Parts: sequence; structure tokens; C-alpha cells
Amino acid sequence: MGIMLGPNQYGKAEVRVVAVDRTSSRHSLVDLNVSSALRGDFAAAHTVGDNSHVLTTDAQKNTVFAFARDGVGSPEAFGLRLARHFAGAYDWITGARVAVESYGWERISVGGVEHDHSFRRAGGETRTAVVTVDGDRAHVVAGLTDLVVLKTTGSEFRGFPRDRYTTLAETRDRILATAVTARWRYTTTDLDFDACFAGVRTTLLETFAATHSLALQQSLYAMGEAVLEQFSDIAEVRMSMPNRHHFLQDLSAYGLDNTPDGPGLVVYHADDRPYGLIEGTVLRDDADPAEIAWQGTPGFC
Amino acid sequence: MGIMLGPNQYGKAEVRVVAVDRTSSRHSLVDLNVSSALRGDFAAAHTVGDNSHVLTTDAQKNTVFAFARDGVGSPEAFGLRLARHFAGAYDWITGARVAVESYGWERISVGGVEHDHSFRRAGGETRTAVVTVDGDRAHVVAGLTDLVVLKTTGSEFRGFPRDRYTTLAETRDRILATAVTARWRYTTTDLDFDACFAGVRTTLLETFAATHSLALQQSLYAMGEAVLEQFSDIAEVRMSMPNRHHFLQDLSAYGLDNTPDGPGLVVYHADDRPYGLIEGTVLRDDADPAEIAWQGTPGFC
Amino acid sequence: MGIMLGPNQYGKAEVRVVAVDRTSSRHSLVDLNVSSALRGDFAAAHTVGDNSHVLTTDAQKNTVFAFARDGVGSPEAFGLRLARHFAGAYDWITGARVAVESYGWERISVGGVEHDHSFRRAGGETRTAVVTVDGDRAHVVAGLTDLVVLKTTGSEFRGFPRDRYTTLAETRDRILATAVTARWRYTTTDLDFDACFAGVRTTLLETFAATHSLALQQSLYAMGEAVLEQFSDIAEVRMSMPNRHHFLQDLSAYGLDNTPDGPGLVVYHADDRPYGLIEGTVLRDDADPAEIAWQGTPGFC
Amino acid sequence: MGIMLGPNQYGKAEVRVVAVDRTSSRHSLVDLNVSSALRGDFAAAHTVGDNSHVLTTDAQKNTVFAFARDGVGSPEAFGLRLARHFAGAYDWITGARVAVESYGWERISVGGVEHDHSFRRAGGETRTAVVTVDGDRAHVVAGLTDLVVLKTTGSEFRGFPRDRYTTLAETRDRILATAVTARWRYTTTDLDFDACFAGVRTTLLETFAATHSLALQQSLYAMGEAVLEQFSDIAEVRMSMPNRHHFLQDLSAYGLDNTPDGPGLVVYHADDRPYGLIEGTVLRDDADPAEIAWQGTPGFC
Repeated sequence: MGIMLGPNQYGKAEVRVVAVDRTSSRHSLVDLNVSSALRGDFAAAHTVGDNSHVLTTDAQKNTVFAFARDGVGSPEAFGLRLARHFAGAYDWITGARVAVESYGWERISVGGVEHDHSFRRAGGETRTAVVTVDGDRAHVVAGLTDLVVLKTTGSEFRGFPRDRYTTLAETRDRILATAVTARWRYTTTDLDFDACFAGVRTTLLETFAATHSLALQQSLYAMGEAVLEQFSDIAEVRMSMPNRHHFLQDLSAYGLDNTPDGPGLVVYHADDRPYGLIEGTVLRDDADPAEIAWQGTPGFC
Repeated sequence: MGIMLGPNQYGKAEVRVVAVDRTSSRHSLVDLNVSSALRGDFAAAHTVGDNSHVLTTDAQKNTVFAFARDGVGSPEAFGLRLARHFAGAYDWITGARVAVESYGWERISVGGVEHDHSFRRAGGETRTAVVTVDGDRAHVVAGLTDLVVLKTTGSEFRGFPRDRYTTLAETRDRILATAVTARWRYTTTDLDFDACFAGVRTTLLETFAATHSLALQQSLYAMGEAVLEQFSDIAEVRMSMPNRHHFLQDLSAYGLDNTPDGPGLVVYHADDRPYGLIEGTVLRDDADPAEIAWQGTPGFC
Repeated sequence: MGIMLGPNQYGKAEVRVVAVDRTSSRHSLVDLNVSSALRGDFAAAHTVGDNSHVLTTDAQKNTVFAFARDGVGSPEAFGLRLARHFAGAYDWITGARVAVESYGWERISVGGVEHDHSFRRAGGETRTAVVTVDGDRAHVVAGLTDLVVLKTTGSEFRGFPRDRYTTLAETRDRILATAVTARWRYTTTDLDFDACFAGVRTTLLETFAATHSLALQQSLYAMGEAVLEQFSDIAEVRMSMPNRHHFLQDLSAYGLDNTPDGPGLVVYHADDRPYGLIEGTVLRDDADPAEIAWQGTPGFC
Repeated sequence: MGIMLGPNQYGKAEVRVVAVDRTSSRHSLVDLNVSSALRGDFAAAHTVGDNSHVLTTDAQKNTVFAFARDGVGSPEAFGLRLARHFAGAYDWITGARVAVESYGWERISVGGVEHDHSFRRAGGETRTAVVTVDGDRAHVVAGLTDLVVLKTTGSEFRGFPRDRYTTLAETRDRILATAVTARWRYTTTDLDFDACFAGVRTTLLETFAATHSLALQQSLYAMGEAVLEQFSDIAEVRMSMPNRHHFLQDLSAYGLDNTPDGPGLVVYHADDRPYGLIEGTVLRDDADPAEIAWQGTPGFC
């Protein structure tokens, strides 16, 4: 019986690379946060401090900038280039994981005309891509985080079991608000990743809006299902959706009613903590499991 | 010689009120973070723990929700109602400051049609309003924070003095990026605050974009000047603009050039800390000083 | 071929419970952040919005407070009570995960004597416990996050391979700084969890300090190995250690040397991003795998 | 009538300098976050982009590192050196403000012996110093932020007025918790700043603990008063103390009592938002006003 090294990885996290395309006077830019991690035989570094297998995290950072100089493309494509490079750099490196966050910028309009080289950060959600290369296989998980959405009606919550500690009232009309994190796994690396991302995002938004929700779980499932129905190159969708509670404020002590039952104004208190947290996977029943594609990505499974 | 109580205030911070207008089936909502603070004679609470003058912060919170039930309107108008109420609640209360943050929501489109009751948080900047009532006078300072903007060219920085510690190279072409915080003081409380806010925001963005910048100070001044030129009811504009450095990445060690001098791709590193911080006021030379309007608002003066 | 629900869970996150023991006039307190998640058959909620299996997250919150009223004990023990309760609440609930963060408070000393009921938040690291009940089995993973440590010498980094993008200089003397996240899995639930936690924490700190480090990987492994050597009830340790870079500042442009080679003062720049990120597992070679114990815990594997 | 430049300043924010003293094998370190801002005649930079008066923020950063190489001393002393240097650098610079945050590190003990060069970040509060040089005058404001303290009893809140919106119950026994920000202005620059800081910090803690509190305002005033009574070189103390509410949790729905009235366990819910915010100044009645010492420091007055 002994003590041994188990799974391990290392890399450079949060390389903030901005690439400006000045090919024409109408500039464009990509704004990325890139994290790389290498897997393979790094046992000697752990056990005796022998770094002969340790491609430095500084070199990983340099590689990100150098590769960006040749053009970036989609976050997924950039991740694939980097992950394949790292995984093939030395024979003791068996795999690499490259995670990319992408921040959106919109052109500033001046007098109704979009400016050539001035931009406003779009704010709100972040686009994500996680590429995992494991030997010869490459997995791409696209996604987004912090897509904050809210319905002012069209959400109920009732019919739940009542144990000793259940005091919640049932409701047929509540605010439903959440910050969507969704990640979906492609079954191919040969895709128009930007178009797919835009399509999935639209599907998520439209399905959230159009679903009359009896449970946040139902909204989550409907959103994942719609994505799978419309995008045949996606095998599974994993979602994490905190329930950002908006509680109806009781104003009766001051002689005021406050109810969603009739027309008029309704006042809610947006609460911070605690919050419900709903997490789930929607997948094709013939999906090839690919757990390694998800390793290292925060989530529930 | 003795020890005494100096300036003081107290209140409830960060009341998160969401008001939904359901007058028609096409709902709308306002999403606010309201902080109130009272000024007046609260000496006994400090010196002997006598709370007979202390309108509780809990009551201040309740007032925010109760007033919201009657309709909110603009953040500035809501702040005025609240501040005047608090300042007039008891004769020992001589003034009140109400600060409001407002978060934007956009309708989700489904099949190209804006949904009646489903929204997406706009993200990005926050609209702010600070109302200060002092006796009979009311001051309104509108503003915004975290309006992140960037120019990929049209920014120079040169001609600066060189002391012993100056090693920075001059540049005729750099990325200029900042997160604008701007606050402007109105000279009247009788305004269409929403229209003014939208107009000032557009002016700030357009001026940032249109200004060929020789210094971030120049951009700041031009932005403030444009606001004052276009909005006669504004006496002064105070701005805080961190210089979010984007450094040209040196790729020469790997045989790659990387320069903004010609067309093509240019790679920058977005740096976190340290950052330049440019702060300044632009005002009318006949502006009535109103320092109390700014008390308690973070800033440099 | 169809679309189906995959793994899912839901619960209440971040219930902030503070329990004060006033049995004697010398009070004590525990300050916890509790998150629960249930696993089981919740398919109908997802597919048709049928909540008859959904023990509300509000009830989960209430349970946390109600159970705290009976005494809390260690975070691990509290988590075990809660997770077993939830997993046994209804026959369709097959498992539960309860994650607890614990914040430390120290007594304030007045005139050299520890006060009976006044405390100062200890700050710094957070103690964590994650309890997973899956059917009849219960797993306990204890841990800590944000234990920030630094060595001003006794750290080298050299002997690494040099690819095209490697420009880093080798060093025999650098600052080594990291924020340790360590999590360890117990093989039993019948333990003095508080004593074990204190012991592991001391071992981690002492080993970090005593190890002459040739690589952050070496420090990580040594720390995990020491824990396993000293605590027979621990099967594995998983660690995540960001390399918080402190770069030697080049002062030669102003005629100043700045080197760790001799005695005297040495000036470093603490950098934020990017950072190296070293993650690894140290385990017994006969450890029973228990992947479910780690499900939902952020980390790399 | 025209538009003009008003008060302005610029500088480099958040220079993260770590200086290690290796004079003996028992190392020590200081860990600072330094922000500088210059005041003077920078009008041309604003109005026409003429930078001939703009000592670059990059040079300010370099100066911080270069000065650290000569030794740092207390944050206040380091700030004084830097502010006087900047204010005297060019005749158009009339003043400078240097703000320093200082982070504490404690030695790691190994086998009961403090290690020579291994440290643990103390966590918790941050020590602050703000030095303002204005012409020939130098002002020093020392302070601390995020000193989180809590009393489990010895706090009441009652006797407050009841308006229409007051629903809060009176209490003779509540948890009182706050995160103290305190800043105090010295009347001299010739002090043992480290000893003073330690003394004031102890006084704040001891007074918070020893005060039976009828209002958070009373605790605040007592703390400031004690500082002024004990430290003759301090003219005024400004404090900001959020009331971190801990609400007694109502457990009656599950048949449990929960009251601080008797011995036993009492369960509270720590709430995030909204929170009370108490701010006040305690000063000597013969204090020389020195408003410029506070310019740019967040606070209420």
C-alpha cells in the first residue's frame, strides 16, 4: 500500500488577448480570456521537482499570443488550434484543455452611422468554449454564462409535496428570473461555430420566453430540448439556472394591496441569497458519452 | 477643548425593488437599487443611545416599497419623491440623500416579435441618480457607471515630459479603452429625466467615438463639454475614466512582427492592474456651486 | 432516437445560518453557508411541469434552520444530518449533496482578556465540507479554500524544456505564492471532524513552509502526501493551487539593482492575470474510487 | 458665459508592490497596493491634448517601485515620500495624493517555531493610508477597512419613532455585526505610524466589545471618542459601519421556539441586502478643518 499521484493538470489561466483586424479601415476585434491546461506524464515534477516535462505556463501564454497573430476566428476554432498544438508538442503530453471566454463589443453609432473603430462593450453574458483534446480525439463544448432573463408572468409553482418544513404558498403567477449558464457538446469539429452559437442562443432565449412555466425545471428542459431538436450536431446540453427569487412585497401594513391578480402595478423584492439552483442535462438517447469533454468545467455532473 | 460629533448620516442601503406595470398585457418593469440616508439631529443616538430621533432604516426600506406601489417613473423622480418625504418626515430631519441605481431590461424577441412579458437583462452600464434634499433645496445628479468603450485606433499619447523614471515610449496609434463613470448635475427638477439621460448617454458615446484622442484627458473634456453644449439644464459634469491598458504584445522572440503601423492583425494584452485613472470636472463658468449635491458620492472632489 | 433528461439535481444554495450557543454567558457561534441539492426522480417536473416530487427549495432552507436549532456541531456532521434527512425524505429521492462553508470568528480581547460575546471575523480562508449521500452510502469531503501562503525564498524553477515559445529565464530564487484549495475525502463518517480539519490544515501549512520547492507541483504533491501519511482515515487529497506570480521588478533603467542574489531589499510586482494553475490529486493506491463524492464540486477531475 | 475645466486629477491606481527584506535570513515583507494622483495645471491636456505637463502614469508607477527599493517603512511614511516627490517634481504640479493599502502576512509556524521565510496572508481587514500633499502642507489619514466584528448580545434597539411605515419590533437583545471602515487624520507627520495604527486598531476593537450598544450610532461614536481620548495626535475620526443584519429566524411553523430570552441555542439568518449604513465623524472641537485631506476618499462627507 502506498501513496501515489492521481489525475493532474497544469496550465496558464486567464490570458487576456485582444486581436484587432485592421485589414480595412473598418476595424473589428475579438476579446478573449484564454486558459490552457496540459495533461500527460508530469509525475517527476510532482515527486522530485524534475521539470524536464513541464512546458512552462509562460510558454503556453506566449503561444496564445503568437497564435492570435495568425488570426483567431471563432473561440472554438482558436481553442482547437491551441489544444491540438499543446497536445502534440511533446510525446509525454497526452491531452490539453483550452477554455475560452469571449466578450462582445458593439459598434458605437455616431449620427446614426456605425463607427469604423469605436466600440461599446456589449455587457451581459459571456460566450464560452471549452476544447478538450485527448490523444487523437477532440471535443468541443460551446456555451454561454450569465444570460440573465426574466418573465413578469407566465410562471406558476404549485402541486409540490408538503413535508413538515414546507411553508411555501402555491402560486399561479410569479416572476421567474434566472441567469442561464448553458453548455452544449458538438459531435463534430467541422462546423460554423459562430452561426451555431448564434442559433443556440436565440433558441434558448425564444424558448424561455415562449414557455409557460410550471417549474424552472420545465423551462430548463424545454430550452435544452429545443436546442437538440434544431441542431443535429449537438449531442447534449447541460444547464445551470439559479432561481433569482423576486418575492411579492407585503404592503398590507400600510394599507396597500399588492397582488398580481389584477391589472396595475406590482412590487417585488429582488432577493440575493439564498437562491434555488436548478441543474440538468438534456441529451440524445444515442449520445456517445464523452465525460472527458466536461472535465474541469464547473457544474454538477 | 472637547470631543464632539461631526457630520453624520444613516440610512438603508441597497433596497432592491422591482416594479412591474401590468396595466396592459404588454408588461414593463423597472429594476432599482435604492439607498437612502438621513441628515439632521441624531446626536443623542450617538452620545447616549437615545433613538427617539431615529426613523428606522427598516421604515426607510418599507417606504421605498410603499412608494413604488404608487408608480416609480424615472429614477430621478422616484428619488425626489423619497428624499422630499424623508426630509419632511420629522422636524429634526433636515435633509436626505437618495441614491438610485437602475438596471436595464430589453424585451426578448420571439420569431422577430418582441415578447409581452419576457425580458433579457441588458447588461453593461448602470444608470444612476442621486437626489439630495437639503432643507428646501433639492439637487439632482444623474449619471451612469461602467459604460465600457474602446477605440482600436484614433488615439495617440506623446509629448509628455521625461523625468528620471519615465521610460514609456511615445505612440501615435494605441488602443484607448475605458469604463466611463459620468455624473451630471441638473439645475432644475422639472425635466424629462429619461429623455435627458438618453441624450447625454448618446452624446458621451458619440463624442468618445468621434474624438481623435491625444490624451484620455482630452477625450474626457470633450465628452463633458459636448454634454454642456447640448443640455442647457446641466451645470457640471464629473467624470472618472480608468485607462484600461491594452499593451501591444511583443512577438519578436518567435519571429513575428506585431505593429499597428500597417494593415493586418494586431495583438494586444489587456492588462488589469495597475491602471491609469483620469478624473475631471467640466462646468459652466457661471455654475452655482452646490457641493452638497455631491456629498457621499464616490469621486475625487 | 429521442431526446431525454440526463443527470439533474436541484436545491437551495447559500443559506446563511448563524447559530449562537448561549448555554453559558461565554457565548460561541458557528457561521455557515449551506447549500443543498437533491437527486432522484424529478423527470415529471422537467418534462410536464408536474411538481409532485419536488420538495421545495424553500422547505430545504427551512430544514437547515430547523436542524440548526437542535445544534450544529462540525460542518461535516451538520452536512451528514441534513443529507441523510433529505435523501430519506421521500422514496423518489435517491441522494443528496450538502455543501457547507464555515467562516471563522475569533474572540476580541479587551485588556488582555477574551470577551464573552464579542468576536472578530478571522478572515482569510474558508473551511468547506461536502457531504454526499447516495442511497445507503455517505461520503464526506472536507477542505479549505483561499489559504493564501507565500515563501520569499526556497523556491526554484528550472530544468524545463524550451520550445519555440519558451522565453522564460530559469531561476534559483523566486517568490512562491499561492491560494491553496484542498479537499480531502474521508473513508469514514465516524470521526472527530474538527480535530481532523485542524490537523490537516496544520500539515498543509507546515509542509508548504518546510518544502524547498523546485516546482509548485512538487509543493502540491508534498502537501498531499504529508496529509495522507499522517491521517489514515483520508483516502485522497485534491488540490488546486494558482501560481500567484510575483515578478522581480527591473529597476535598471533608473540605475538601481534589484536581485535576490544578495542580502538587502528586493522589490517584486504582484501580478493578477494570467496566472499559472496547478491542480493535482494525491491518493492511496488502494483507495476505493468514489467519484460521486466529488460530483458538483468545482475542480479539474 | 462659457464652459471650463474644473477640479481634476490623474494618476496610476493599484500598483501592487511587494518588498522583501532579506537583510538577514529571517525575511520580512511588505505587501502594498499604491495609487497616486497628481493635481496642478493640466488644462492643456484636457483642452487641446497637449501633454507637456503630464508626468505619465507609467512614470508614477516606476517611481513607486524605485522608491520601494530604498526601503518602504510604514504605509504612511512611504506615502509621504512619494507624495512629496510627486508634488515637487515640476512647478506646475501643486499637489499629490497617494493612497496605500497594506495587506498583512503572518509567519507560518513549523513545529511551533516561526518560519524564516514562509508566510500566511492574514486575511480580513486592510490597513489604509492616504497622504495628501498640497503645496507645503502634508496631511496623513490612516485607517482600516473591512474589520468585521460581531456581538452575540449586549445590543438593543428600541425607543425609535414610529411613522406610518415603521413595522420593526423593538428588541433588547440582538446580534450586532458590522464591517468597520475607520479613517483618522493625524495632526503631525512626525509619528511612529505603525505603533499608532496598532493602538487605534486595538482601541476600536476593545471599545466595540466593551460598549453595551443601544444603537449602532452609539457604538460608532464611542469608538471614535475612545480613539481621540487616547491619541492626542489625531484630530478626527470618520467611520462607516454597515449594519450587517442577523435576523432571528422564526421556527414556530415547525413547533420550535427560537429566542434569545433564555439560555440555549439561537438561530439567526445573516442577510445580505438591504443593510443599514451608519456613517459619522467624531472630532475635537478645536480641530483645524482640513477638507483637502479627505478629497477623493470614498465616504459621506
